[in-house]
Amino acid sequence: MNEAHRGLQAAAQHLESAQAAISKSLAWIKRQCTVGKGVSNEKLDEHQLASFDLAWCAAEATGTRFALDYARKVGAARQGGVVSLEERIALVFCAEALQNIRNRLWARPQSFGLGDADLAALAAPGYGGFCQAHLDAAGLEALGKDVIALNGASGAYLLSDEATMMQDSFRRLATDVVMPLAEAIHREDRIIPQEILGPLTEMGCFGLSIPERFGGLRSDEHEDNMGMIVVTEELARGSLGAAGSLITRPEIMSRALLKGGTEEQRQKWLPEVASGDPLCAIAVTEPDTGSDVSAVRLKATKCEGGWILDGVKTWCTMAGKAGLLLVLARSNPDSSLGHRGLSMFLLEKDSYEGHDFEFRQPQGGVLTGRAIATIGYRGMHSYELFFDQVFVPDANLVGGPEGEGKGFYFTMAGFAGGRIQTAARAIGVMQAAFEKAVSYSQERKAFGKPIGEFQLTLVKLARMATLLTVSRQFTYGVGRLMDKGEGQMEASMVKLFTCRTAEWLTREAMQIHGGMGYAEETSVSRYFLDARVLSIFEGAEETLALKVITRSLIDSV
Amino acid sequence: MNEAHRGLQAAAQHLESAQAAISKSLAWIKRQCTVGKGVSNEKLDEHQLASFDLAWCAAEATGTRFALDYARKVGAARQGGVVSLEERIALVFCAEALQNIRNRLWARPQSFGLGDADLAALAAPGYGGFCQAHLDAAGLEALGKDVIALNGASGAYLLSDEATMMQDSFRRLATDVVMPLAEAIHREDRIIPQEILGPLTEMGCFGLSIPERFGGLRSDEHEDNMGMIVVTEELARGSLGAAGSLITRPEIMSRALLKGGTEEQRQKWLPEVASGDPLCAIAVTEPDTGSDVSAVRLKATKCEGGWILDGVKTWCTMAGKAGLLLVLARSNPDSSLGHRGLSMFLLEKDSYEGHDFEFRQPQGGVLTGRAIATIGYRGMHSYELFFDQVFVPDANLVGGPEGEGKGFYFTMAGFAGGRIQTAARAIGVMQAAFEKAVSYSQERKAFGKPIGEFQLTLVKLARMATLLTVSRQFTYGVGRLMDKGEGQMEASMVKLFTCRTAEWLTREAMQIHGGMGYAEETSVSRYFLDARVLSIFEGAEETLALKVITRSLIDSV
Repeated sequence: MNEAHRGLQAAAQHLESAQAAISKSLAWIKRQCTVGKGVSNEKLDEHQLASFDLAWCAAEATGTRFALDYARKVGAARQGGVVSLEERIALVFCAEALQNIRNRLWARPQSFGLGDADLAALAAPGYGGFCQAHLDAAGLEALGKDVIALNGASGAYLLSDEATMMQDSFRRLATDVVMPLAEAIHREDRIIPQEILGPLTEMGCFGLSIPERFGGLRSDEHEDNMGMIVVTEELARGSLGAAGSLITRPEIMSRALLKGGTEEQRQKWLPEVASGDPLCAIAVTEPDTGSDVSAVRLKATKCEGGWILDGVKTWCTMAGKAGLLLVLARSNPDSSLGHRGLSMFLLEKDSYEGHDFEFRQPQGGVLTGRAIATIGYRGMHSYELFFDQVFVPDANLVGGPEGEGKGFYFTMAGFAGGRIQTAARAIGVMQAAFEKAVSYSQERKAFGKPIGEFQLTLVKLARMATLLTVSRQFTYGVGRLMDKGEGQMEASMVKLFTCRTAEWLTREAMQIHGGMGYAEETSVSRYFLDARVLSIFEGAEETLALKVITRSLIDSV
Repeated sequence: MNEAHRGLQAAAQHLESAQAAISKSLAWIKRQCTVGKGVSNEKLDEHQLASFDLAWCAAEATGTRFALDYARKVGAARQGGVVSLEERIALVFCAEALQNIRNRLWARPQSFGLGDADLAALAAPGYGGFCQAHLDAAGLEALGKDVIALNGASGAYLLSDEATMMQDSFRRLATDVVMPLAEAIHREDRIIPQEILGPLTEMGCFGLSIPERFGGLRSDEHEDNMGMIVVTEELARGSLGAAGSLITRPEIMSRALLKGGTEEQRQKWLPEVASGDPLCAIAVTEPDTGSDVSAVRLKATKCEGGWILDGVKTWCTMAGKAGLLLVLARSNPDSSLGHRGLSMFLLEKDSYEGHDFEFRQPQGGVLTGRAIATIGYRGMHSYELFFDQVFVPDANLVGGPEGEGKGFYFTMAGFAGGRIQTAARAIGVMQAAFEKAVSYSQERKAFGKPIGEFQLTLVKLARMATLLTVSRQFTYGVGRLMDKGEGQMEASMVKLFTCRTAEWLTREAMQIHGGMGYAEETSVSRYFLDARVLSIFEGAEETLALKVITRSLIDSV
């Protein structure tokens, strides 16, 4: 057994200790919150801080598990005694994650319902010693040097040949077509131009999550997330707003239709979505609801031959250019029904290029849109939408008459896809920022030499490479779970983790650029702005942590 | 002895333990780096990660000291047994800071030269127990509720009557004049308009750090930083770019002239600087030097009656509108002289409003400027400057013939003022973001009630109030030290600490706003962008930590 094996074995053992403490705390919170046969949401709200921290602990523990898998796979292929870069990265990640978990639990054990005995394993010299051994300055400095030598790469991707081929083509497209346009699209707040949409449509990227029999690229038998993930990652490396987010809407739309649509609806719409014509948009969020989907109020009233939509939606990305909107609306006015009063509709509309539009129906309905100016994530344009007596025919109620009242579930099915896809977007943004950080650290001089030769910069680069590489493997791992019909909760975990990590990484990449990092002409400043949206959209981090992750963990503990 | 006294006494005792570990590590690093009689910079660079962390530990320990002072002052004035908000805030701060210090040192004790025995006091149950007791969810939630009730305030300022009066007038000005203009100035990238400059000039804000005998507002006998700090804080609350940074340049300029100028130069220039006419700018940074001032290359060549300046400066804020530039230049080509080859010059120029300018001298010299577009901190405009045979008369060599070769020292004297002033700017930005976070938490609903009623939001607001309030007292405390001619190194500490804290606080304020936090029309999005510059300019955090703070601590250990 060599050094790497020993380290990984120790990490696995300490991870079990960490996991035991997390599970114990979840069980304790569950006991505090159980009223009769169920867990009370109100009681659970009294434990929000602990729940938030536990979601993070669980996400990092899960990330650690994928880091260990990664190291094992690389280790199995390795000859001889030299510890590979990937194994070192995995060990640094494990050390940081285990340390973070311990520090969080120690900060307020009473809020977690944990006593000294529960934390004894985390307080034992072996646990701390493992973390310390892999977080030592000298080790990180050496890792940083090896990372620089890779010139922006950071460890094997371990993809299938097919996924690698897709990666290659989309990486080229991102580098050659997207990157040169990204700055202008951001600074002039332009909408994504045809120069980008054209080749993406040709390459089939809107059909990545759509089964072949509906005109898409994935197998008919089971989900295949790897293609979607890899393509998203490469496009987001080119630009989050100008390319990396284009697949999100078809992703959510197709999952919702596959889950809830009638066969007729699938046959009609999925091939169109797959072909990128029309482009689509998702209208779920409302000004007063945010991530609380069950509170949606936009009204759907039955009329002759269809439904009339009235109300307001917001943050509807791509709504101007899109020709097809997926709209979640309240089809039953009985407010006691909560999310069971919601249905999902498909609205066809004209396509507009501008920041404002007005779509008038022959029936008299009017949909007006106003793009909300944002600090980043430009290129897509997110709209506030006003529905005034907008008509949708019966055929466009998702699921047909059976689908009435099931809109919430179809939305959630779509959103799980949005989350894993967002993790892939976060990785792409990180990869772009990381590449710039590595190259600029070689160019920029301070105190007589390139800053990339200083220990502090080397440590920053080593940590960036570590968090990026494991975030990627974490995303791939969850994608593979989802291929098997599992991993819904893990999709939220990896979204939570990678998005916050992207904020940190882009911040450090700016810092490496010094003053120029703050200039609009320097792309890291744009990556920083783009990264900031990630923890807000597709489920704000607070909602994901409290209402999805910890809630699911508590239910299953 | 009541509860607060006991808590504060415990905090003071644990702070001593933390301080002892920090000092021990500093002494160890010093031993590792001592070659002959001095500390070797090269050797010190081998300990950058530990040095960076130690600078943070020392800054937080110093902040804790000021937090304790604050609680004692408030406690002394208090009647009866109720623990005041300020004391609770101080205790939460101490707990977080002590926990952070311990976690940093524990992460890699070997890199700090610390053994188990050195860390025993930090590992003792009392130390951890103190932190846990004050970081409990219930306590933070209760603090959050009390903070909300204050509606954007967060604990007594403890200012003199005079400073309070200044605070009142400038707060009114910021609210009534600056805030209504701030969004347009940012979104249209305008230069600060006369509507803001006019009243500020009238109120004497450019002369806050200039002695009365030179036309300023401060006493002739000693520095008086409190006025400058309080005014800066209030203006930065209005807007960092459109008001809060106006004083930085007169602050640096006047300190440099008071330190290095001849009596004649002071008499000529200080009254003009104090009157805001001309506005001034500081040209130190160069494209290849960043925070490494000693590497400045802009060439000053002696000529008949003066000097000729040739070269490039960058990030020269306000250079277009300014009529007077303070320029650091290499007056002696012998590169072995390092920072002893630098001199400081005053360059008079015309004032320009635009993003580009060209200033032609009758002697033939040309100074051209190009404003660098930035993601935030707009309103000031930071320029890249090209000096082509620009002439300055002998009278404008700061310090006269004696001043030749002393430009580095005069610059550093100016920069210490820039740092405490930047801490005040960070507080102002935090105050603005905090107010918006508190008010929006009452407006925005999720899951059936205002988000400000949820524990997680309450904890966020409690932590914001804590870090903001103690940052303020830390800044005031260092300002008072500087009034006595001390606190140069502490000015770097408080700059380091408050600027990073402002990044965190504005990020959380955005998060409380949900999607709207990312919209340009919402002011927290601007606060977030503005806050991001703070850790980059006026000494990047890496340079301050390594080259100023830890270096000074090691020299004095």
